[in-house]
Amino acid sequence: MKVAVIQLNSKSDKQNNLQTISILINQAAQGGAELVSLPEYCNFLGEDSEKINHAEHIPEDETTILLSNLAKRHQLFIHVGSIVEKYNEEKSYNTSFVIDPSGKLLNKYRKIHLFDIGIKGLPSYKESNTIQSGENPGMVQLPFGKAGLSICYDLRFPELYRNYALHGARILFIPAAFTRYTGMLHWEALLRARAIENQCYVIAAGQFGSYLPGKESYGNSMIIDPWGTVIARASEKEGVIIADIHENIVHAARESIPCLGHRRPEYYNKVPVI
Amino acid sequence: MKVAVIQLNSKSDKQNNLQTISILINQAAQGGAELVSLPEYCNFLGEDSEKINHAEHIPEDETTILLSNLAKRHQLFIHVGSIVEKYNEEKSYNTSFVIDPSGKLLNKYRKIHLFDIGIKGLPSYKESNTIQSGENPGMVQLPFGKAGLSICYDLRFPELYRNYALHGARILFIPAAFTRYTGMLHWEALLRARAIENQCYVIAAGQFGSYLPGKESYGNSMIIDPWGTVIARASEKEGVIIADIHENIVHAARESIPCLGHRRPEYYNKVPVI
Repeated sequence: MKVAVIQLNSKSDKQNNLQTISILINQAAQGGAELVSLPEYCNFLGEDSEKINHAEHIPEDETTILLSNLAKRHQLFIHVGSIVEKYNEEKSYNTSFVIDPSGKLLNKYRKIHLFDIGIKGLPSYKESNTIQSGENPGMVQLPFGKAGLSICYDLRFPELYRNYALHGARILFIPAAFTRYTGMLHWEALLRARAIENQCYVIAAGQFGSYLPGKESYGNSMIIDPWGTVIARASEKEGVIIADIHENIVHAARESIPCLGHRRPEYYNKVPVI
Repeated sequence: MKVAVIQLNSKSDKQNNLQTISILINQAAQGGAELVSLPEYCNFLGEDSEKINHAEHIPEDETTILLSNLAKRHQLFIHVGSIVEKYNEEKSYNTSFVIDPSGKLLNKYRKIHLFDIGIKGLPSYKESNTIQSGENPGMVQLPFGKAGLSICYDLRFPELYRNYALHGARILFIPAAFTRYTGMLHWEALLRARAIENQCYVIAAGQFGSYLPGKESYGNSMIIDPWGTVIARASEKEGVIIADIHENIVHAARESIPCLGHRRPEYYNKVPVI
């Protein structure tokens, strides 16, 4: 299967973001992509306080309708890293979803782990001020196999991805708007580890560049194979990267190093002897 | 605390290996080390069939006695990545242990996940032919804080390290004799991920170089801080690397990105919605 990852520099102008997305999906389709992955907060990235004004119903509202039409027109699967989804008057969900080539919504996933951090000397984040956390891991069935859904900060929690691997995932979607600083330190090592330890392809579409004063995303969107090799990486701009993914690479990794079968869950929660 | 990691090229001559270990521990002590870490299979690395002939009781036998004396003489903690420990007439344990500056055995840990793998075109391994797997996670209390014990192939199982972090670990010991091929692909990414996701120091003493025809270890021994930064790395030879580790770096990482408190274990074993 040919996979395209779209790296964006989304800002607060939703119409402009959607136009860029349309152009880049068209470009991915020209490149032969059968699956296109978009980053977190792809249709709006701006002030926290404005998020709720852009919250949509999925699949009833504008962004899903547009992307459904693009999926049909280009006959491909679209993984939407996330958009802000309506929840109530105070908070929204940060929601990923996948559309099939008939334009149908296959599933959605609401981000479980919210980005509440503060590093000295850098802007702090409190996503839970505006976002309600999800409560369910979510997967989709693609022709290539099952794929597990996650968003950005979820990456720091290996338990979520292990659950997907144990339920048959061959692909892990990890879209993000990783900050430049934590991205530089953590993004590649954690993505590669999730691919290696679960012997899955990792598809990681990232936001790149500045979107508010002092707030900048790391980019470095990647496609990583089940051996942990980065087979495609975006450079420092908006754009499309494409790679072929192969079922036999998943099988070869799992046959060579059968670590998923070597797990000893009966010991993992034992209180360590000290 | 000043930590030394000793990289070895152990072979089948036990006396020779023990002599090298003594020399390098002396060198580490001269460098001011308060804790010295040795790699997996430090006193014997050779044919599987010979392992059982070198199996020892811990702490009654030769290697523990020698290392206890060295710990006392140099007034430091010694983490022994592993030696072959007596189990029965057919199999042994692959066992890590830690000795304090009074020469006392603090704890031992028997490798849980055994290295049974085969990559096409490369030598295959079946550690379970000669080794009995352990059944207990193990930790030690150091002046710096608690440390979790593990060995080599355990590295592929994030569950073990998460358990240590949740039980208060600030250090993760990951000694190894990683093969050159899998080391090149996986060693650094997995080590850094364990440090980052658990916000612990990772102390990873590795075997380096050839020890049997066609069998070669990757080396690249490392000390990694809780931000995932490699603060010391061994080059392509036997030797000692030293780094200072600081409690306030652990605190700063955990305060900046409080991900250990953001875990949502109630969702991790839910069957994913599909």
